[in-house]
Amino acid sequence: MTENLRIGIVGAGLMGGDHVTRITNRVSGASVSAIVEPDETRGAAAAANAPGARSFTRIEDAIEADALDAVLIATPGAYHEPVLLPALEAGLPILCEKPLTPDPESSLRILEAEQKLDRPHIQVGFMRRFDAEYAKLRALVESGRLGELLMVRAVHRNPDVPPSYTQSMLITDSVVHEFDVTPWLAGSDVRSVEVRHPRRNSKAPERLREPILVLIELANGVLVDVEMNVSIGFGYQVATEAVFEQGVARIGQPQGLQTWHDGTFAIDEHRSFTTRFADAYDAQIQRWVEAVKRGTIDGPSAWDGFKVALACEAGVAALDGGIQQVVIPERPAFYA
Amino acid sequence: MTENLRIGIVGAGLMGGDHVTRITNRVSGASVSAIVEPDETRGAAAAANAPGARSFTRIEDAIEADALDAVLIATPGAYHEPVLLPALEAGLPILCEKPLTPDPESSLRILEAEQKLDRPHIQVGFMRRFDAEYAKLRALVESGRLGELLMVRAVHRNPDVPPSYTQSMLITDSVVHEFDVTPWLAGSDVRSVEVRHPRRNSKAPERLREPILVLIELANGVLVDVEMNVSIGFGYQVATEAVFEQGVARIGQPQGLQTWHDGTFAIDEHRSFTTRFADAYDAQIQRWVEAVKRGTIDGPSAWDGFKVALACEAGVAALDGGIQQVVIPERPAFYA
Amino acid sequence: MTENLRIGIVGAGLMGGDHVTRITNRVSGASVSAIVEPDETRGAAAAANAPGARSFTRIEDAIEADALDAVLIATPGAYHEPVLLPALEAGLPILCEKPLTPDPESSLRILEAEQKLDRPHIQVGFMRRFDAEYAKLRALVESGRLGELLMVRAVHRNPDVPPSYTQSMLITDSVVHEFDVTPWLAGSDVRSVEVRHPRRNSKAPERLREPILVLIELANGVLVDVEMNVSIGFGYQVATEAVFEQGVARIGQPQGLQTWHDGTFAIDEHRSFTTRFADAYDAQIQRWVEAVKRGTIDGPSAWDGFKVALACEAGVAALDGGIQQVVIPERPAFYA
Amino acid sequence: MTENLRIGIVGAGLMGGDHVTRITNRVSGASVSAIVEPDETRGAAAAANAPGARSFTRIEDAIEADALDAVLIATPGAYHEPVLLPALEAGLPILCEKPLTPDPESSLRILEAEQKLDRPHIQVGFMRRFDAEYAKLRALVESGRLGELLMVRAVHRNPDVPPSYTQSMLITDSVVHEFDVTPWLAGSDVRSVEVRHPRRNSKAPERLREPILVLIELANGVLVDVEMNVSIGFGYQVATEAVFEQGVARIGQPQGLQTWHDGTFAIDEHRSFTTRFADAYDAQIQRWVEAVKRGTIDGPSAWDGFKVALACEAGVAALDGGIQQVVIPERPAFYA
Repeated sequence: MTENLRIGIVGAGLMGGDHVTRITNRVSGASVSAIVEPDETRGAAAAANAPGARSFTRIEDAIEADALDAVLIATPGAYHEPVLLPALEAGLPILCEKPLTPDPESSLRILEAEQKLDRPHIQVGFMRRFDAEYAKLRALVESGRLGELLMVRAVHRNPDVPPSYTQSMLITDSVVHEFDVTPWLAGSDVRSVEVRHPRRNSKAPERLREPILVLIELANGVLVDVEMNVSIGFGYQVATEAVFEQGVARIGQPQGLQTWHDGTFAIDEHRSFTTRFADAYDAQIQRWVEAVKRGTIDGPSAWDGFKVALACEAGVAALDGGIQQVVIPERPAFYA
Repeated sequence: MTENLRIGIVGAGLMGGDHVTRITNRVSGASVSAIVEPDETRGAAAAANAPGARSFTRIEDAIEADALDAVLIATPGAYHEPVLLPALEAGLPILCEKPLTPDPESSLRILEAEQKLDRPHIQVGFMRRFDAEYAKLRALVESGRLGELLMVRAVHRNPDVPPSYTQSMLITDSVVHEFDVTPWLAGSDVRSVEVRHPRRNSKAPERLREPILVLIELANGVLVDVEMNVSIGFGYQVATEAVFEQGVARIGQPQGLQTWHDGTFAIDEHRSFTTRFADAYDAQIQRWVEAVKRGTIDGPSAWDGFKVALACEAGVAALDGGIQQVVIPERPAFYA
Repeated sequence: MTENLRIGIVGAGLMGGDHVTRITNRVSGASVSAIVEPDETRGAAAAANAPGARSFTRIEDAIEADALDAVLIATPGAYHEPVLLPALEAGLPILCEKPLTPDPESSLRILEAEQKLDRPHIQVGFMRRFDAEYAKLRALVESGRLGELLMVRAVHRNPDVPPSYTQSMLITDSVVHEFDVTPWLAGSDVRSVEVRHPRRNSKAPERLREPILVLIELANGVLVDVEMNVSIGFGYQVATEAVFEQGVARIGQPQGLQTWHDGTFAIDEHRSFTTRFADAYDAQIQRWVEAVKRGTIDGPSAWDGFKVALACEAGVAALDGGIQQVVIPERPAFYA
Repeated sequence: MTENLRIGIVGAGLMGGDHVTRITNRVSGASVSAIVEPDETRGAAAAANAPGARSFTRIEDAIEADALDAVLIATPGAYHEPVLLPALEAGLPILCEKPLTPDPESSLRILEAEQKLDRPHIQVGFMRRFDAEYAKLRALVESGRLGELLMVRAVHRNPDVPPSYTQSMLITDSVVHEFDVTPWLAGSDVRSVEVRHPRRNSKAPERLREPILVLIELANGVLVDVEMNVSIGFGYQVATEAVFEQGVARIGQPQGLQTWHDGTFAIDEHRSFTTRFADAYDAQIQRWVEAVKRGTIDGPSAWDGFKVALACEAGVAALDGGIQQVVIPERPAFYA
């Protein structure tokens, strides 16, 4: 491994472009050496922000040209598998944006391919684990200082969503984060999912029936309720309240510059995930770069991604009613 | 009606004694003229704090002695009916601590008796309606400024409960407040109740399986989830977050003196409802006194109390599972 | 003393009218029995809100008619002396709105008149002492929990002031409250006053050079700095930060209903002192009524009012520069 | 300029070691190539954390060996001049920890040496300018949204100080930050300094008379008062409240994980500047690295450092009383 980690970014959309800037300007010990993007115009635009990066339209070409040491996949989930498989075959370390793949079956195929290697090569991009406040909350759970964790009450509010956003994406694109981060906080897997429908937001696109309230039960009995809102207008907010036996903790509260003006005390709320989780994205990449240099990963594995896919499948079914069970197979020793 | 309203307090326990002090020292235009309490020692102790008050062991005797203009019932719910009926028969204005009675059947009997009078005489002591923050939240709902109300996320946390507190009292003694105040906030009746069980608090008394999460659906589609906790140790907290179409509002947040000391920024939390709702209790009584002088009530009626009894019945059933429906009969014109 | 304290209100302006409503509707054990107001139209309007109250144009007439048991003076400070003297001569208990009188000389005349009685009859209306947060802060000082009090950093911000408000009223009408409450908090008298001039607010009326920063040194070394602002527009705010040896405490912070809307987390600020100190005014009157019935006062005495007059005199001089000393004569045993 | 900026760190104490870790692990486009430290053991320890870095005992040797592209000076202020002069002579870009030098005379010598070069080479390490909240506050000032800035009320509280900390260091080591950041916020130079002494903290070391309250007047009339506290025990806090004509803004308020436990709502306060300003230090170095590559600086210049030295001189004199004037010579075009 060279001292400078050469990263190939696959997908030069909003998220990919963001990663190009991040790695080029804020991450130590790595650079963007390749942009893989079928749309050549878009690829060239992204490459222009990464001095020295080469452009490719297919991951296979980038691999063959030895243009990268590691892969960061930032395409939509439906396009992950055809990048993951050749990258695994080439034995490359991979950071794959969430979700690993769109469904449990394809995730299983990834797991199989990965297990042909000597050790896990894939890290999935659930960046909340790298947010400083989530990390403190997890440390509080582990400390036992407030007793055992009993409930988690979560909020995920978006000002709006793009036209491509569908009803099932409430689960697979948004609640998906809770399916990863809550088990990570609570140290226990998802056991069941229920969805309850509050009054519909008349400001939501016609195709969406939202907000929804998602009830997630974990194997250790912890109950999570997630308010999932994607047309609330005012801003972007992700907040969590953890209820312990002898206390309560919460994160994601208003902070920063405070003003008094025109009859009101005010604090600006975030407008999108890009500012809310800016530091978490930076930390995720920095720590992944360092882990790759040590020959490991430092975050959720493909196995974690697979479990999330199972929970999403149950969550989508739960949109139509009932408490849906999630059955997780035994974990392969490979992912121990 | 004399200028000074002579109030008879029935029940000289903690709550009754509190009302004696309140009316004697902080309420304008009223005084405690009678204490009705079967335990004579206790009754005499309470009367000592109310200059000029006479003591009785039975409400009938107080009525016969013309010792009061209005009745405030502060006994446990099981003892309300035998006081309500003679007081109604005597045509007295009544403020009855919650619940009206312990079940819908007995509440119906009260409704029948009351309807023999010319107008409603009973106000039920759901004091949250008199809390300044709840009032502001309701005004915000009515203003439509943030759009329609969609969800309510409520928290009710007690440090501990007395030995007499049973599993069903999670509903009938505690969640009962949400059954009154949420329909009042949202302008719609309770339609169904579901109870979900998080991990059990090992600090709870053995007989209790708590906390619980109660999901209340209102007729207009608003979904309420109530975290009900009675062994959380740290303090007494009642907080509500209202989710609108275009914004969010919350009440019950930490306030008052702030300190920095020993590494921490801190604000004291309440230890019991007596401080959390002190002003609400005062306002409830003051406004009831004024309403009585005008020949009316100013707060939840016996009909409201009956609807809460129906919701409690469903809630207790829901402790054993399922989504329990609440069917509310048509409202008599008497309570229009 | 009758059970019901009959209070005569002198001055039926904004403040007097406010006290009429307060005593009639929210104070226990007292009623407004007389309105004394030279403007008969105004006096009649105020009397209309106080059932049974009689109207007078001179305090002497009200006293002669035995129309009151106690006097509440709510006229501007310049008119206090001609009411205080006959009321003292009649031996009546008095609650006198701040200031006691406009200058130390006239205050001394009041002290002399009062000392002819058997005990202090005058309480001065510095209502901050009755604010719940100030009370908690004082209890914290007395507890020694955070060590000795070293500094107080105070803020007094008004949205605007009426045309009658002059430069010296920055001291005599506004900072006057700090001259009373800070010594009360710190347990030590004012020793000197300095005024520093920040950049002038261009929104201030032309006649005013403000905001100002007032530095008050107490005899025990505690240093107080008061930001005094009267054209800040956004609302009414009184806040205090107390710096101790081993910690810090503050009061007057934003509280109440919180909302997220349109990109912002917000809490309403007060618009005037009437809401900020509503509870303090109520508590002041209620406790004074009870004290009067016990034959005493329960709040700042005329001696406290005199000391404040001395501090104001120094403060007004300090508007022109320099550190102005305040010399307080020995306290008469009468005020021990 | 090579793509990777080779930085030589001068001084391997606490601050220097911190910078080694920062540049090695979190800064993009730079590495630590040399450690200059007279204490060889200490130098070797620091070098061990910087792969590939060489150790030197004198800056001249590092320059002669062509071991660096830029210099970061992290020694105590008294040792800055003998490093600055040879580094300037070698034409190297320099980031010099505050203060530039301990007094105006030596700062002037540095200015003279620097002006022999083609452009400013020195940036002074006043890292508050790189704190996200200070940046937002400055943007608010510049926006004019709340009107003109009138006052700044600042707080700088340390839990304790090392034995080497002297009375004058209250000014030269601590208030020094306000002498840089407040003019930067307000867009105006320091005109005078006054120091007022509150009650002394009995927990302070015997040699210190503190806290102090420092009043700084700027040329545009803005008045700043700084509470400077170095034995307050509870934690490390830097907060600022800016008073505008039509509103108020503040930064440095409690944030992060919130807990309820044992009767209290709490947020952890910082314990030292290393966490309070961790992000600001990172941003300062990252932006300086990028500026150096563009052949410029991106932060306070040596001229800014000189003006701060003048203010410190006045501040130290003010410890003994009076309002001390600060006379700033005309700015050389070189620093325009």
